[in-house]
Amino acid sequence: MPLLKSWVESANDAKNPFPLNNLPYGVFSVDDGDLRCGIAIGDRIIDATGLEAAGILRADPDADVLDAPYWNDFMELGPKVWADYRTKLQELLAEDASDEIQDQLTTYSVPMAEATMHMPFRVAEYTDFYAGRHHATNVGTMFRGAENALPPNWLHIPIGYNGRASSVVVSGTDIRRPWGQLKSPDHDTPAFLPCRRFDIELEMGAIVGTPSNGPVTVDEADEMIFGYVLLNDWSARDIQAWEYQPLGPFQAKATATSISPWIVTKAALEPFRVDTPEREYELLDHLKDTGPMLYDIKLAVDMAPAGQPATTIARTNYREMYYSSAQQLAHHSTSGCPMRTGDLLGSGTISGATKPERGSLLELSWGGKEPLTLDTGEERSFIEDGDTLTLKGHCEGDGYTIGFGTCTGTVLPALEDPYAR
Amino acid sequence: MPLLKSWVESANDAKNPFPLNNLPYGVFSVDDGDLRCGIAIGDRIIDATGLEAAGILRADPDADVLDAPYWNDFMELGPKVWADYRTKLQELLAEDASDEIQDQLTTYSVPMAEATMHMPFRVAEYTDFYAGRHHATNVGTMFRGAENALPPNWLHIPIGYNGRASSVVVSGTDIRRPWGQLKSPDHDTPAFLPCRRFDIELEMGAIVGTPSNGPVTVDEADEMIFGYVLLNDWSARDIQAWEYQPLGPFQAKATATSISPWIVTKAALEPFRVDTPEREYELLDHLKDTGPMLYDIKLAVDMAPAGQPATTIARTNYREMYYSSAQQLAHHSTSGCPMRTGDLLGSGTISGATKPERGSLLELSWGGKEPLTLDTGEERSFIEDGDTLTLKGHCEGDGYTIGFGTCTGTVLPALEDPYAR
Repeated sequence: MPLLKSWVESANDAKNPFPLNNLPYGVFSVDDGDLRCGIAIGDRIIDATGLEAAGILRADPDADVLDAPYWNDFMELGPKVWADYRTKLQELLAEDASDEIQDQLTTYSVPMAEATMHMPFRVAEYTDFYAGRHHATNVGTMFRGAENALPPNWLHIPIGYNGRASSVVVSGTDIRRPWGQLKSPDHDTPAFLPCRRFDIELEMGAIVGTPSNGPVTVDEADEMIFGYVLLNDWSARDIQAWEYQPLGPFQAKATATSISPWIVTKAALEPFRVDTPEREYELLDHLKDTGPMLYDIKLAVDMAPAGQPATTIARTNYREMYYSSAQQLAHHSTSGCPMRTGDLLGSGTISGATKPERGSLLELSWGGKEPLTLDTGEERSFIEDGDTLTLKGHCEGDGYTIGFGTCTGTVLPALEDPYAR
Repeated sequence: MPLLKSWVESANDAKNPFPLNNLPYGVFSVDDGDLRCGIAIGDRIIDATGLEAAGILRADPDADVLDAPYWNDFMELGPKVWADYRTKLQELLAEDASDEIQDQLTTYSVPMAEATMHMPFRVAEYTDFYAGRHHATNVGTMFRGAENALPPNWLHIPIGYNGRASSVVVSGTDIRRPWGQLKSPDHDTPAFLPCRRFDIELEMGAIVGTPSNGPVTVDEADEMIFGYVLLNDWSARDIQAWEYQPLGPFQAKATATSISPWIVTKAALEPFRVDTPEREYELLDHLKDTGPMLYDIKLAVDMAPAGQPATTIARTNYREMYYSSAQQLAHHSTSGCPMRTGDLLGSGTISGATKPERGSLLELSWGGKEPLTLDTGEERSFIEDGDTLTLKGHCEGDGYTIGFGTCTGTVLPALEDPYAR
């Protein structure tokens, strides 16, 4: 598919992340105004809430589904409505739209540079998977030795755990270094201390659009997915090491998970579908690939000490995953677990085969034994106070880019006394 | 505290679970009517939604917080409002209330026998702990041997994992036996099959009333808790055994969790506070007991094969727990994890020291090696199709009972083909 040209000139630049081919959904405000649903096109945001109220572009003829600071009500309407809405939206923004339409839409738009972005949807529940083979092998090797790196179940099911929806925040939110219970290997008893090994996890997040009640097939799961965001699952490695046996990660992952503000729809990603890797064991029928289930999304992580320029510390690709989000969602439903509009599924950390492709500091510094040297000359094993971590992602089309924007957060020092009031 | 007498005669029976001392909160409907907030007193339900609309009993002078099929808006108002409301409610229902008040309240009430009960609150998120020492020791012994029964962290933090809020259902809901991926020890590869080792977990559920944003002390956590329910965390042991390393239980616990329909308030439980057990290691300051933090709640589990009378298969007490809900909630907040109105915290399975005090079939049948014999003569290692499992709980006061009602569910056969449409 080539670049689709828009009358919004900035959207026609091959490097602009938001061409007519993309049209991601977000929630924005300007100055101290209301939170409104918006659509990115070039360097502008279309006010979707306003277009709906004016009757210019409606998803549902009878209900104002965008009269809310989230896209959940729209998501609930399902794939047919998503497709129809996108078609109409592309007509309104195409270069051959009438002058009258262009004037109308311009009225219902704001410069992106003037807008503040907010959470684009209400997170119903948040699940985090562990579906990157290189990541699981790296972490397993560090924790259990190379021979036991991959748990026995890993090549048969996309293992995951339930995270904490209340801790999901939008890109740009500062992240406070947590306190927690941890135990040094050289101490007999644990202590309550600020986290010393605070880390990122580079992930994609899949957003469930339509609900289910009972097991769904991989194809049904794929239909349920509304879109994708970049996701950083901030991780306290020292808290995790002490708490995670036998019930899995808990407080180590509950401080915050950041997501990028624009939901890139499945429709926009369609041209970038790629196959999952070859299988070491054949998957059971209910988890089998039914076509290309991953996406070719180029990913990078930037790290910037306070007041310093950023260094790109990792580059990888979403196609490195062993399991797709559709397979994860199908597995999630096997027990009959009801899945809901707004459920967020983290892919698991995305790492490639080589060292500069690793999606966490734990792997990049090999548990702190091989600190990174940033372009500024500073060394890093884990995150230091004031560091800003930024995930970036895009697909390279034929003369156009499908961008995810960025997912960024600055780490603030731990509270001196977390119980001071 | 003695029995508080009510003009609702049935509430004055020393064995009635719902005297004036109790006054638990639920959501009910009659025939095909709306779902309304209700309060149990003797054999009647007071229509709290109706009392609010009529201006007879209001929690908030300016907002109709009970004009909803859940108590969440009321819970959000906090401890002072909860206490004032309870005081006014006890005055209206006390035996010395005027004839006029008695007539009014009778108009706004229905016989409990005619009502259908629903979920009493919207579950924001659901966390399940593992805080019963006898249970953890029993399960650990079966899975890892007696010497490694308790994980190293167990005596230092109330370990837990995030469950799935969408799967929480009210007592009386039928439970469909799940399918899942499992692996027999005598097979090389896993298979997708109906669960063969379906189980209960006898727990108490604590409901978070007021939110937090940052670490809270144990005393602050206790203030945040609105009340308690009985909780059965249905568990697929064979799915759990295959999936739980290293990320913890996931689909094994996502089919359903049942709760009793009446929220027994912390105020009603106040006379039954008891100390936690002696500590093997001193807890870190932020988790220390600040007074009697558990409750003396007598618990039992009944099992009834289809069409057969029930056998009581276990009797234990909530005071057996090692950690209180307040300590669990304090731990839950250490990372800065935002806690919200409607969060549900499962205590973990409650087992006593001896065999008939065990709160799961896994422990009662010792992993299936020592099947139970029911009063009907039938044997059980795990749940069979058609079995009804019922949790019961009450506190014994001085001439009165604080009852929780029951938490019951019947297990239906697995779907023949979970993907048939």
